[in-house]
Amino acid sequence: MSPALFEGTTAEDEHDLPGQLSKEVYEARIKIHRSEYISEGDFVRIRAMGMNTVRIPVPFFIFGDVEPYIGCIEELDKAFNWAERYGLKILIDLHTVPGGQNGFDNGGWCGVCTWSQDPEKVEWTIRLLEKLAQRYGSRTGLFGIQPVNEPITEEIWNLMDVPNRYPAADPALAEKSRPNTWEFLEDFYLRVYERLRKILPEDKAIVLHDGFDSYHWKGFMQDDKYKNVWLDTHLYLMMAEASGCEQTPQEYVNYIFTNYQKQIREMEKYFPVLCGEWCLFNSLCVGADTNGGRTVLHGEDGMSSETVSDEEKKNIYRLLADAQLEAWRSGHGYFYWSYKLLTDTVNTNGWIGWDAWDFGRCHDLGWIQI
Amino acid sequence: MSPALFEGTTAEDEHDLPGQLSKEVYEARIKIHRSEYISEGDFVRIRAMGMNTVRIPVPFFIFGDVEPYIGCIEELDKAFNWAERYGLKILIDLHTVPGGQNGFDNGGWCGVCTWSQDPEKVEWTIRLLEKLAQRYGSRTGLFGIQPVNEPITEEIWNLMDVPNRYPAADPALAEKSRPNTWEFLEDFYLRVYERLRKILPEDKAIVLHDGFDSYHWKGFMQDDKYKNVWLDTHLYLMMAEASGCEQTPQEYVNYIFTNYQKQIREMEKYFPVLCGEWCLFNSLCVGADTNGGRTVLHGEDGMSSETVSDEEKKNIYRLLADAQLEAWRSGHGYFYWSYKLLTDTVNTNGWIGWDAWDFGRCHDLGWIQI
Repeated sequence: MSPALFEGTTAEDEHDLPGQLSKEVYEARIKIHRSEYISEGDFVRIRAMGMNTVRIPVPFFIFGDVEPYIGCIEELDKAFNWAERYGLKILIDLHTVPGGQNGFDNGGWCGVCTWSQDPEKVEWTIRLLEKLAQRYGSRTGLFGIQPVNEPITEEIWNLMDVPNRYPAADPALAEKSRPNTWEFLEDFYLRVYERLRKILPEDKAIVLHDGFDSYHWKGFMQDDKYKNVWLDTHLYLMMAEASGCEQTPQEYVNYIFTNYQKQIREMEKYFPVLCGEWCLFNSLCVGADTNGGRTVLHGEDGMSSETVSDEEKKNIYRLLADAQLEAWRSGHGYFYWSYKLLTDTVNTNGWIGWDAWDFGRCHDLGWIQI
Repeated sequence: MSPALFEGTTAEDEHDLPGQLSKEVYEARIKIHRSEYISEGDFVRIRAMGMNTVRIPVPFFIFGDVEPYIGCIEELDKAFNWAERYGLKILIDLHTVPGGQNGFDNGGWCGVCTWSQDPEKVEWTIRLLEKLAQRYGSRTGLFGIQPVNEPITEEIWNLMDVPNRYPAADPALAEKSRPNTWEFLEDFYLRVYERLRKILPEDKAIVLHDGFDSYHWKGFMQDDKYKNVWLDTHLYLMMAEASGCEQTPQEYVNYIFTNYQKQIREMEKYFPVLCGEWCLFNSLCVGADTNGGRTVLHGEDGMSSETVSDEEKKNIYRLLADAQLEAWRSGHGYFYWSYKLLTDTVNTNGWIGWDAWDFGRCHDLGWIQI
C-alpha cells in the first residue's frame, strides 16, 4: 500500500521489515504511516462516496504483545470513534495470523503457510479474536468480525503457485508450508463461532472467508443455532484471467455474470454473501497481460507508458464496474480492495493501470459510479 | 498539518524539529510524511473537486543544501508530473526563508523574523528563486512563482503580538526580530521581478503577497514593462474576528462584503488579485471565541464536545462559503488553506471546529459547494 515503508530494504512483507531496519527507524516509519495514511478525513470521505461499512484489515500483533512488531489497537479504537461519528460500520478482518494462512505478501509472511498445522497458534488466534470481540462487541460501530482473511486451500495454492510467486525470505521458515485443509478450516470456523458468539451479540456478524471455493460451504452451519453467519468471497478480474477469461470487455462481463454472479446467487441460498474484495484492475486497461496480477509487482516489466487512452479506459472501467456492482448486488454487500493505495503511476516505471486498485482514484476519475 | 511528525518533542516548527530527534528518526518521519501525506491520488481528487490550480508551499531548504534539513525538490518534480497528467497548474509558494519573514510557526521559525535585515540571506533567497524558475520555467504545469509567503509588516506584527503568540525556542535567535519594512518589501519585489522575469516566460505569473495590507500596493509596478504580476491577499474570518467582527453569521457576511470584497475590487484596478489563502474556520462554529484562531493551537483550552449541531454547522458554513466565494470571484482566483490537515476532532480533545481548515472535509461534509 505504501512503497516508502519498505524503501532501502529488500523486505516484501510485514514480517521481514523490522529485521531490516533499526528499532527506531522501524517505529518512526510505522507511526507516521499509521497517523497519515488513514485519518479522520478518510472516514468522512468514505461516507461521502456513498459507502456504509469499512472492512479494516488488522494484524495478529494488533495488541502489541508480539515482538518486534508495534501494536495498533489504539488506531482501531480511533477508527471506531470516527466510524460512529460519521455513520459508518466496521468489519474487523484478521488479515494475518502467526505462521501465515496463505503465504501471500498481504498475509504478512511471503511463502509461509504453517499456522494451521500448529494447534497452539490456532488457539492463540482464537483468544485474540475473543479479545477483539470483548473490546468492540457492544459498539454500535461494529458490523462484525472476520476470523481470518483468505485461508488458502489446495486448488488455489497450486493455481497461484504460491511458493514461487511469493518466495520466502527465510526458506527454513517456509519448509513445512502447505495449504490449509478443508477439515481444518471447517473445524476452525465452528470453534471460532462457539467462542465468539458467547461474547458477540447476535446482531454482530461473524464473517467466514470461503477459502477460495464458495460452493464448498453449501450446507455448512445451516442449523438454526448459528446466528448471523456470513460468507465472504473475493472476486477479482485477475483471477478470472488466470482461469482463462479472454481479456476483452465482453468476455470480462460474461465471466462476471456466468461465474461470479451465479456463485453469489447460489450461495445466497445458504448465507448472506459478501464480496469482501473486488476491484476494477484488469490486464486490458494495463495494456499488457499481467499474468493474473503479477508482472511489475513481482519484479517483471510493467507498462511504462499509457497505451489505452483515458477515454477508452473510462469506458471499459465503467462497463466493468456496472457489471460487477450488478453481480455483487445479488448478494448482501461488497467492499472494494482497496480504499487507497500509494502506487505512483506517473513517476515510477511500470505501474500503469495499477491505480485501479485505489477506490478513491476510481471514484474521482469517474470510473465507478455508485 | 501532521501532529505525529512532532510527537514526543516540544518542537513547534520545522526549524526546531531536527534538533530534537536523531538524524535517522528525523529522516524516517519526514520521508514517510512526504510519501503519504500527498500522493498522486490527491492530484486526481483536487481536479475532481473542481480546482484547476494548486498552491504548493516549499521551504527554503528545498534543494537539500541546508543542513540538517532534508531537501524535497524530487517531491516537487513529482508534483509537476502529476499536475500535468491530471490537468492542474502549480503556484510555487516560497513559504519559509532563512532567518524568517514573519515569526509564525508556518514560517518555520517561531518568533524569529530577521531575514530582511541580512542582505546575504536575501540575495541567497533570490538565487533560490532563480533556481526554481530555471527548473520549472518552461513547464506547462507552472502557473507562477510567489517569492515569499506572508512577509509581515508592522501593523499586523503588533495586532498579532507575534513575540508572545509565537515564543521563540531560542530567544537569542529572535533577539533582533522585528517586522519587515515596506521599503524593504518594495525593493525586494522589484529585485525579484527583474531577476525572475529574465528566466520566466511572460505567461508565468509572479505573485506578490501584500504584506497584510493590499491598499499599500496601489500604484506599485504599474509600468507597462511589468508583465503578469499578481497581488496575493490572505483573507481569514479569524482575522475579521481579531479586527472586531461580531461572531454571528450575518456579521461575518457583512464583513466579507464590506471589507474583503471591497478590497479585492479596489485592488483589481491595479493587479489581478488572488485570495491565496482563506478558509471557513470561525469561532461561531467552534462554539467558543478562539481569540483569532489561538486557543487550542497555543495550549489554551479548546472545545471538547460539539455545541453546534451538524445541521446548524452546515447551514452556517454554506452561507459563509457562498459569501466568500462570491467575494473572491471579484478577483482572479482563490486557494483554500489547506487542502488537507490531519487534525483529529474526534479523538483529541479541544479540536472541535478545526476541521474547517481541511478543504477535503469541507467538501465531503457538504460545507462548500464549488
